[in-house]
Amino acid sequence: MIARYARPAMAGIWSDESRLARWLDVELAALDAWAEVGAIPPDDVAEIRARAAPPTPQRVAEIEQVTDHDVAAFVDAVAEQLGLPGRWLHYGLTSSDVVDTALSLQIRDAGRLLLEGIEQALEAVVARADEHRHTIGIGRSHGVHAEPITFGWKLAGWAFELDRGRARLLRTLETNRVGQLSGTVGTYAQLEPEVERIACERLGLEPDPLSTQVISRDRHAELLSVLALLATSLERFATEVRHLARTEVREVEEPFAHGMKGSSAMPHKRNPKVAERICGLARVVRANAVVGLENVPLWHERDISQSSAERIVIPDSFLALDYMLDRFHWLMAGLVVYPERMRRNLEASHRLFFSHRVLLALVDSGMSRDEAYRAVQAHAMRAWKEETDFPELVRRDPTIAGRVDLETAFDLDATVRHVDTVFDRLHTLVPKEEPVHA
Amino acid sequence: MIARYARPAMAGIWSDESRLARWLDVELAALDAWAEVGAIPPDDVAEIRARAAPPTPQRVAEIEQVTDHDVAAFVDAVAEQLGLPGRWLHYGLTSSDVVDTALSLQIRDAGRLLLEGIEQALEAVVARADEHRHTIGIGRSHGVHAEPITFGWKLAGWAFELDRGRARLLRTLETNRVGQLSGTVGTYAQLEPEVERIACERLGLEPDPLSTQVISRDRHAELLSVLALLATSLERFATEVRHLARTEVREVEEPFAHGMKGSSAMPHKRNPKVAERICGLARVVRANAVVGLENVPLWHERDISQSSAERIVIPDSFLALDYMLDRFHWLMAGLVVYPERMRRNLEASHRLFFSHRVLLALVDSGMSRDEAYRAVQAHAMRAWKEETDFPELVRRDPTIAGRVDLETAFDLDATVRHVDTVFDRLHTLVPKEEPVHA
Amino acid sequence: MIARYARPAMAGIWSDESRLARWLDVELAALDAWAEVGAIPPDDVAEIRARAAPPTPQRVAEIEQVTDHDVAAFVDAVAEQLGLPGRWLHYGLTSSDVVDTALSLQIRDAGRLLLEGIEQALEAVVARADEHRHTIGIGRSHGVHAEPITFGWKLAGWAFELDRGRARLLRTLETNRVGQLSGTVGTYAQLEPEVERIACERLGLEPDPLSTQVISRDRHAELLSVLALLATSLERFATEVRHLARTEVREVEEPFAHGMKGSSAMPHKRNPKVAERICGLARVVRANAVVGLENVPLWHERDISQSSAERIVIPDSFLALDYMLDRFHWLMAGLVVYPERMRRNLEASHRLFFSHRVLLALVDSGMSRDEAYRAVQAHAMRAWKEETDFPELVRRDPTIAGRVDLETAFDLDATVRHVDTVFDRLHTLVPKEEPVHA
Amino acid sequence: MIARYARPAMAGIWSDESRLARWLDVELAALDAWAEVGAIPPDDVAEIRARAAPPTPQRVAEIEQVTDHDVAAFVDAVAEQLGLPGRWLHYGLTSSDVVDTALSLQIRDAGRLLLEGIEQALEAVVARADEHRHTIGIGRSHGVHAEPITFGWKLAGWAFELDRGRARLLRTLETNRVGQLSGTVGTYAQLEPEVERIACERLGLEPDPLSTQVISRDRHAELLSVLALLATSLERFATEVRHLARTEVREVEEPFAHGMKGSSAMPHKRNPKVAERICGLARVVRANAVVGLENVPLWHERDISQSSAERIVIPDSFLALDYMLDRFHWLMAGLVVYPERMRRNLEASHRLFFSHRVLLALVDSGMSRDEAYRAVQAHAMRAWKEETDFPELVRRDPTIAGRVDLETAFDLDATVRHVDTVFDRLHTLVPKEEPVHA
Repeated sequence: MIARYARPAMAGIWSDESRLARWLDVELAALDAWAEVGAIPPDDVAEIRARAAPPTPQRVAEIEQVTDHDVAAFVDAVAEQLGLPGRWLHYGLTSSDVVDTALSLQIRDAGRLLLEGIEQALEAVVARADEHRHTIGIGRSHGVHAEPITFGWKLAGWAFELDRGRARLLRTLETNRVGQLSGTVGTYAQLEPEVERIACERLGLEPDPLSTQVISRDRHAELLSVLALLATSLERFATEVRHLARTEVREVEEPFAHGMKGSSAMPHKRNPKVAERICGLARVVRANAVVGLENVPLWHERDISQSSAERIVIPDSFLALDYMLDRFHWLMAGLVVYPERMRRNLEASHRLFFSHRVLLALVDSGMSRDEAYRAVQAHAMRAWKEETDFPELVRRDPTIAGRVDLETAFDLDATVRHVDTVFDRLHTLVPKEEPVHA
Repeated sequence: MIARYARPAMAGIWSDESRLARWLDVELAALDAWAEVGAIPPDDVAEIRARAAPPTPQRVAEIEQVTDHDVAAFVDAVAEQLGLPGRWLHYGLTSSDVVDTALSLQIRDAGRLLLEGIEQALEAVVARADEHRHTIGIGRSHGVHAEPITFGWKLAGWAFELDRGRARLLRTLETNRVGQLSGTVGTYAQLEPEVERIACERLGLEPDPLSTQVISRDRHAELLSVLALLATSLERFATEVRHLARTEVREVEEPFAHGMKGSSAMPHKRNPKVAERICGLARVVRANAVVGLENVPLWHERDISQSSAERIVIPDSFLALDYMLDRFHWLMAGLVVYPERMRRNLEASHRLFFSHRVLLALVDSGMSRDEAYRAVQAHAMRAWKEETDFPELVRRDPTIAGRVDLETAFDLDATVRHVDTVFDRLHTLVPKEEPVHA
Repeated sequence: MIARYARPAMAGIWSDESRLARWLDVELAALDAWAEVGAIPPDDVAEIRARAAPPTPQRVAEIEQVTDHDVAAFVDAVAEQLGLPGRWLHYGLTSSDVVDTALSLQIRDAGRLLLEGIEQALEAVVARADEHRHTIGIGRSHGVHAEPITFGWKLAGWAFELDRGRARLLRTLETNRVGQLSGTVGTYAQLEPEVERIACERLGLEPDPLSTQVISRDRHAELLSVLALLATSLERFATEVRHLARTEVREVEEPFAHGMKGSSAMPHKRNPKVAERICGLARVVRANAVVGLENVPLWHERDISQSSAERIVIPDSFLALDYMLDRFHWLMAGLVVYPERMRRNLEASHRLFFSHRVLLALVDSGMSRDEAYRAVQAHAMRAWKEETDFPELVRRDPTIAGRVDLETAFDLDATVRHVDTVFDRLHTLVPKEEPVHA
Repeated sequence: MIARYARPAMAGIWSDESRLARWLDVELAALDAWAEVGAIPPDDVAEIRARAAPPTPQRVAEIEQVTDHDVAAFVDAVAEQLGLPGRWLHYGLTSSDVVDTALSLQIRDAGRLLLEGIEQALEAVVARADEHRHTIGIGRSHGVHAEPITFGWKLAGWAFELDRGRARLLRTLETNRVGQLSGTVGTYAQLEPEVERIACERLGLEPDPLSTQVISRDRHAELLSVLALLATSLERFATEVRHLARTEVREVEEPFAHGMKGSSAMPHKRNPKVAERICGLARVVRANAVVGLENVPLWHERDISQSSAERIVIPDSFLALDYMLDRFHWLMAGLVVYPERMRRNLEASHRLFFSHRVLLALVDSGMSRDEAYRAVQAHAMRAWKEETDFPELVRRDPTIAGRVDLETAFDLDATVRHVDTVFDRLHTLVPKEEPVHA
């Protein structure tokens, strides 16, 4: 992931330093467990804990030059700090025990950042939805005017979708809250399930019920799919912003900071660049999910093909999505909304959206559907061709005006009368965050 | 999906006839609801129920030739059976209310078939796992001999993964168990939330809390991702079968029916064709998940771009996965397993896998890790170069034999001594199927 | 591929009947070659040619029930027509020789249909481009008004892109114009390169210089990538149509046939449904390219995992793209264009696009860039805020009007003065179709 | 792309410094062109050339903090070096003219590195193919023994495929050898086609015949597809290495440097880790091709959604493929090959591969196919069941031995007698590198 789209906290989790620190956490948890089951002297473990610090990436890289194995280099780099008790380090473990369990810790921490990002985004969306609950505008299907809706209603839809994304993320973080200390081919040949249990507990993880030297990659594939879907939901919202920001529509604009270059001689160029960037990055997160799936069918008890791919796609998906959520939050919090423009657009199609209401009112009055249709159609066609207001034409038609209560038929508020029902549902979306285990 | 890979029950769900029947189910549920809220005379609804039958695809196609709109053609085709009460048909609805709600019904039914397929596959996997709980063979990492494992242990891993797939499927079927009768742009302008509630209840669905003329496509994208992950898990298992069936390994063979051509003059050609086919179809199901994601960012309240894509990928993914599960079940139920061959392969690498146990025993005996390493290494290298049994060489080395209990070190069963722990976990996988609502 | 999107000629190529007919073509070409090299009596081959007809799919399916092998069943089904000379049928061949060579024939024929589709589409695009070479409207970046362009200019861009797609298709059809008669593992063990050469020549193919029982799948992956890119280009064009057809823009409309339902009471609902359908199908063709890539890494000399996947994705991509090209041609040929609406939209941003020209004219007159910028900016901001015509404001500013020839600065035609240069380039796109070999 | 897989030369091309240097190249080429057409004083251009140096990324970042526009910041950072003539900098250009043309320069240079990588890999493959032209082993279909092949023959197949990849790369580099100086929406409103022509010529590019503020993204999508296919071909070769390196097959091993940790106590663990890494990275390059396709349908004359995605996927695909080619070259150059092991494996299936030759010899001798089949089958089945040599059994059967020349039938060399034909074709693959224009 290029630095351009990396926020510090998330970048920190995926840094080399951070990975080595988590590797050490796993090694120490394993030593604690060995001590607890009585296999290693507690004093040695205490001494190791007192002395051990995560080695620098530079030191590990130096050793790796010779050994061509990163975990072995890490173990050597830690051991050289420890003196005699160091011989217990990595006792009974295989590299993947350390790597995969530490990856679970990174995923957990990165997941928490994303959950915070979703919470913030959701809060902003709900706030703006409440603000514009009654801001009426035209709803569109196929990009073409359909019937009225409120801007808050649109936003409420995003909130429900974000909330589903949050629920998916919570579930997949739970799916990935597993560790393993199961050794080569996962048979605990030099280990004990009890050691795994204790170590995982200390790390806040559950033991994978069956690992095969690696934690099964369907878990990570699920994770990457969930991130891809979250990114894609953000793309949907950003696409709507882009649509509403186009010159002919101009119902919203991206927040515009002062001092930005190039804008002032072309003041109409409030380009929705951040929304476009969200759309572009969504493509990357989506593609990474394909990689996640292809990583699942490892050979036999494990091959290492997934490793190089994961070093790229897992951090990149987290980094990109973290950035996207932050930008989306910024976009929502500061989005400039033009209610009067929404109203103007609503009326630009000659209020033909009322044709449906008139039609149903005529049917309710006992007119056959076909007859009603023809009556409405004539006025609709004329309104469209002559660019005239449809309700005006209808009001002047006694055969309709005589049968139907036109005040009701042309009641704009009535078209969105159920907005409160939907908002009542929205406000049941209380923060549902189940605790992600320590 | 070509007929070659379509099983009848699943193909039935996705047939034109079946779709039209579900469209009618939705229309009738809507009429019931309207009657219940008092908007339509119950007698008219009763009369419609008595007369209405799903129209034939041919009749709908004829009308669609003129109208260029499939739901409108369907409504006309039903209405022409109904006489006067027919005017209530489709009252207040928009096409998507019918199409999307009916799609949810198809997904629910197709999902049930898949759940059955998973159950059957899981049952077969667990049965074979139990059968081969103690069938010892060599575990492999990187395709290279590592340490012993049992064949049942491998299979148990598949069972856990299948079970995770089942849980994902159950959840996403619940996510997709939603209907909508919310009208154009989803504002209930000519509808009532109460009508939607009643109709959905009759259909066994929940109302989508906010639909926008369509049910939000993140739900369908989630579904297609889950199907892709299931297919990919099957690919992992099938890949293992292919590996174990290769001539040099030959630990398993696909079931082989009598009368199959071409085999008898080349009796070694027990090609794992079904396993290969599962791998191939997994690619298709996986790719369809990408389409599912791209279908999410519809424009404004809806565009119809997702429709053509979904007509292909949703049925295809269900059909392919249904077929794959059936074939995988057949493969597991009939898989020919060669325990003696597993044992032969195990021993082919000169039992070098014991080197790790000897090493640890030496360390436990107080030898420094480096010294122990060198002692083991010498014998290991010799065993490898001279194609000699490693334990034999070690037994003859007094410096090792004097310090270590070699009976324990070379105890093959001890390497897989924790198999029962893992199988205890396996047998807690009681059928977890939460009821999929009627 | 569902029937809904299959056109007859393309569906014919991918039918079972057609596949069996091409299999027979390959078998007969092989027999001719064997006869020519003297290995089989020419009279026997003549007799086989006289008697052999493609078997029905039903007959092949019956035999396949027993043999579980489709090519073997086909050979039996043909042989039963032939009497004694039938023993030469399939002489020395392996199934893949027939299947892969016949697939190349299908690809060639299907490719020709696509080339015709591209030609037709290209012709329509160029015709409409010529028609609207000078139809001026606003160009947009980020969906926001930028500077003027002509509608023909837009379309010319599509023509260049389609032409690149055509060139790619021609190249990949050439890449796939290969056959093989190389036998098991491709070593000609029971065959002769000369037989392959002669048979391929008769079929209008080149021998693959090295096949491994199968034609290398990088060729088919290339093909599917090219189809995906063509489909994606169509999506780009269709997306533009969708944008221009939205109510607020309404510069174009899809052709609208009479009798279409649902339109007349809402005459503004000229939904760009066909353009949306093109976008949806593009997703499917794109995803199929991923499958094509995953099909490449077959195991050893071949596995058969690609077969099931190809049976779906190769026909589907051809069928979908054939349909898309046809619909795109229809769209282009009949697209309703509103030049006056383009002009209205152009002016809706207060002709601020002239700000760039005024700025440069000031710089040319010797003003510093910064000073010029500030001068222009003031008027631009005012025009935007007060919704006033920008040129009007500038004309009234003597410091600008005194330095700059405003007639030139505000010359709309000058902004698109290079249109002829681009069209000259366009008209060098003479039909470049290199002959696809017989 | 993480540093772990970035080689210096390729990383250099995609560094921030390098991008800014190329931006400056484009700006200077444009100034040259303006001078040549007489619009800008040549002395000013000469002075700019004398003074201008690429700004540091730090300086650009500082300015971008304020302007939020990277190209504008770059122009300011260069201009501040230049004094008065600096006002000509960026004259008439829009940001994309600089960005997209510079990207073409980076692609050209990165493409050259890849071509070198392919050349080196190809050379190694051909050398090893020649070395093992006659090293006989068993060919495999479905992972199961089929008929003999030589190891060189396998490698020759890779050479042909790599060569096709090279040809694709050359073509797509030519497709991407285009620049643009066409201004906002691509209409040359403040530019001249002649300026574009001259500037592109100086940069070694062709002008895009029609750009729309951006170079059409079908070109970049084609590029990413070609890189994906190349990566996938490498995956095919690496997969074969992994298969051949598995313990039971062990026909090859990855080169093994001394000092590598962990190997010596388990000398059989020559894990094909580099081959696995190639497979993993192929997934990433493949997924990036999907992003390339999704980047094509930009809105109207351009949106900027592709930009963020391209900043990641274009460098990453080049970096990963560059690394993969280098590792593949290392793998091929040093691959340890075990001919005697190939022979041992060949014979392990009881030489049943001769059954096909005996069968055909019997048919040639006049026996009916069915009778011949039964005769061969009996021996084949027995050889398989009793683990006996098939030729031995046949030799003892007088009904066969009496009719057929068994020396010929059991001539192993005859099964690969056409190897020279294939190698003759191989050696026509003279370096075909068409010059990539300066």
